[in-house]
Amino acid sequence: MRNSLLLPDLRELIQGGEDDVLREFLEDQHPGRVAEFIEDLPDGDGDAVFRVLHPRERAEVLGYFERDEQDRLVSAMAPREAAELLRVMSHDERADLVGRLDEDFVDEVLPNLAQAEREDIAKLASYEPGTAGSVMTTDYVILPAHVTVRDALDRLRHEAPDRETIYYCYVVDHSRRLIGFVSLKDLILARRSAVIEEIMQRDVIQAKVDDDQEGVARTIDKYDLLALPIVDAESKLVGIVTHDDAMDVIRREQTEDMLKFGGVAPDPEADDLPYWQSGVVTVVRRRIKWLMLLFLAENFTTPVQQHFQWTYGDQQLPALALFISLLTGTGGNAGSQTISTVIRGMALGEIKLANALRVVGRELLTGLCLGLMLGTTALVYIHYWRNLPWGVSGVVGLSMFCVCMWANVIGSVVPLAARRAGIDPAVVSAPFITTLVDATGMVIYFTIAIALLGLVK
Amino acid sequence: MRNSLLLPDLRELIQGGEDDVLREFLEDQHPGRVAEFIEDLPDGDGDAVFRVLHPRERAEVLGYFERDEQDRLVSAMAPREAAELLRVMSHDERADLVGRLDEDFVDEVLPNLAQAEREDIAKLASYEPGTAGSVMTTDYVILPAHVTVRDALDRLRHEAPDRETIYYCYVVDHSRRLIGFVSLKDLILARRSAVIEEIMQRDVIQAKVDDDQEGVARTIDKYDLLALPIVDAESKLVGIVTHDDAMDVIRREQTEDMLKFGGVAPDPEADDLPYWQSGVVTVVRRRIKWLMLLFLAENFTTPVQQHFQWTYGDQQLPALALFISLLTGTGGNAGSQTISTVIRGMALGEIKLANALRVVGRELLTGLCLGLMLGTTALVYIHYWRNLPWGVSGVVGLSMFCVCMWANVIGSVVPLAARRAGIDPAVVSAPFITTLVDATGMVIYFTIAIALLGLVK
Repeated sequence: MRNSLLLPDLRELIQGGEDDVLREFLEDQHPGRVAEFIEDLPDGDGDAVFRVLHPRERAEVLGYFERDEQDRLVSAMAPREAAELLRVMSHDERADLVGRLDEDFVDEVLPNLAQAEREDIAKLASYEPGTAGSVMTTDYVILPAHVTVRDALDRLRHEAPDRETIYYCYVVDHSRRLIGFVSLKDLILARRSAVIEEIMQRDVIQAKVDDDQEGVARTIDKYDLLALPIVDAESKLVGIVTHDDAMDVIRREQTEDMLKFGGVAPDPEADDLPYWQSGVVTVVRRRIKWLMLLFLAENFTTPVQQHFQWTYGDQQLPALALFISLLTGTGGNAGSQTISTVIRGMALGEIKLANALRVVGRELLTGLCLGLMLGTTALVYIHYWRNLPWGVSGVVGLSMFCVCMWANVIGSVVPLAARRAGIDPAVVSAPFITTLVDATGMVIYFTIAIALLGLVK
Repeated sequence: MRNSLLLPDLRELIQGGEDDVLREFLEDQHPGRVAEFIEDLPDGDGDAVFRVLHPRERAEVLGYFERDEQDRLVSAMAPREAAELLRVMSHDERADLVGRLDEDFVDEVLPNLAQAEREDIAKLASYEPGTAGSVMTTDYVILPAHVTVRDALDRLRHEAPDRETIYYCYVVDHSRRLIGFVSLKDLILARRSAVIEEIMQRDVIQAKVDDDQEGVARTIDKYDLLALPIVDAESKLVGIVTHDDAMDVIRREQTEDMLKFGGVAPDPEADDLPYWQSGVVTVVRRRIKWLMLLFLAENFTTPVQQHFQWTYGDQQLPALALFISLLTGTGGNAGSQTISTVIRGMALGEIKLANALRVVGRELLTGLCLGLMLGTTALVYIHYWRNLPWGVSGVVGLSMFCVCMWANVIGSVVPLAARRAGIDPAVVSAPFITTLVDATGMVIYFTIAIALLGLVK
């Protein structure tokens, strides 16, 4: 998307100090593109370009920088200038920014803002991270029920510059309770003399301010909304979450799930950090937790082996010992396939606790098919290619069959059980299942060995 | 979100045959909610409700059903009725629907549509799956550059009912080449007498019709767009991709990544199928590929052991054998942590081939820290808790250290190498890495054992 061809011309304009031409050129661009130009320019020039922009333009461009870059640019401003910027920023980004800036600096900036704006910033900052409140914004359009479409459109014309979106308007009563909704499309289509009350949609899809942000994002996704109104306990309208913020939430949540699934301990602080911004120490801290835990878990496999250690005396069992990692490995793989499927199904809300049994049954059936194929392969392969007696290949084949079914059961039961216990199923990582299958698989293996080969202590 | 309280009242209205009251009630609801009501009602009643709706309302509601339900409802209609519905459906959903319906039925329906609409359906169906063309729609608003804002708003008023969105308008020249863009917000704010040319944004963010759909979705996400214009080779405007379709693409792609990562072979057909709609056979087919492949790979571990089999004669090595799965297990876990991080970083475009070396270096450093911690733990744990000689615990500890570093290197190098080779890195699943670490880890283990314990053949 980046248009590096334009950069030389840009630099010329900057060095030539032709600010008006520069500004005109920049205002013809999407703010996100302007942000890219600034990033691609050497620091000095970049800042020069940023300073050329009008506050509104600046506020929009700012939103497309990485956070630390945002903080750098704003911290470099004079308090009055920074306040001027905050005044026109979208309310949710503004609150986040202030939260990140150096306190002393903030203390110099805030007095330049109106009381109402300071309160708005404080209010938005006060919501629990992960809730609807923490991702909503307060610069939305509200309409009274009794005005005409003509008046409504006039209001929009005046409010548009300061609103995150004017495409959705929310209708509230005298006590700010949410009673209806009209889209700008409805307004455009309606008779100018019609009263909002007549054309508004009364059943408004909404969420509570302390709802989970992921649920809110899923609702926006499910109903293809541009924004979702957020109400407080008295169902008074307190904010909206917009579609682009919903997309960010979904992306973040999915990064979190992917890492958890890979066995990286969750860390709300770090999850929305891009790869390069989380330091090695953070990374190690997030990974060691699981590794240590699983390390201890893995040790259950050694006692299991030790318990069967005498079997090393038997002439056939050194051979059997060779297939331990083949069995546990395959079992672990089947297990991770199952949880990846089940966890994703849960994340999308396709799999609910209500149909837990059907899920397990389905996975058991799948494991049965997989086990038959792999078990037979093992049976034949070990007898003919590895030239080992049917006894050995039989033990391995049968164990393979059982381990596959077992792994699929674990892979589906464990995440469901986790959800049942109120634990985030995504925490049940592939490594976790693999380790579990390692330990249990070996028990299955040796038990079958003893049964089939009729070994005795 | 579901409002089951309303269901009884609904059923009353249906049985009472009070269609007008029913229709009025339903038109006050979001189409997505109406779809839910219909799903929650017994089939007969549901269909009755669906029939009560006006075609436009119906078309909107239809979009919120699962595909097979959509197909059922439409197939049950008379050809003229179905055609009436297709006429008002959003163009992308219409094309998909026709593609799924029974051919003979389609042959009866299409003649009832205007030439232009039949061509539109054929055109949209003709694009490669996975491309921008396959997810775009053609019911967007275009404006000529020379009209005034007043005229533009009048046009919008007339076109609104038939357009997917009227919030973004695209400006094209006589040969339909994309030359500019205005949002409805811009129009609302502008002087009524202003000419589009003066207020339009000339640098329009756009994509090519054969671009990858995921890239298109990421662009919409990155620039917080409501829609992205799609142009052909001559940069003529041929369609738009809307934010809600972009969200669907991102969700689908992420499901695909998650499953691939879990070791489930990718299957474009099945990836956008909800959990319950892909049959066990499909599931088994998708999983067995990897399991078989890894099964064969796992076998490399047995020769490795066999090669060191003579060591079973040594009095110390049965003890060492106990820690095989502890080592390979932990190594595998460290490996999956690394790829889950790296693959996600690649998916989000944070990790590029350009900085491959930095990534590997970073992961190596991480592995070093993890290895130190786990190695020391193993060293101490095995000597004191398991009462084994320092020789044994030393071998395991040092091996643990090396295997952790090694696993992190593999976990970062392999996906990067895959990308380099033009293979989708997400295919490098956790099971794949685990298996790789199993085999190589054991070589490391036994080599160290021989070196430290000075064993000789």
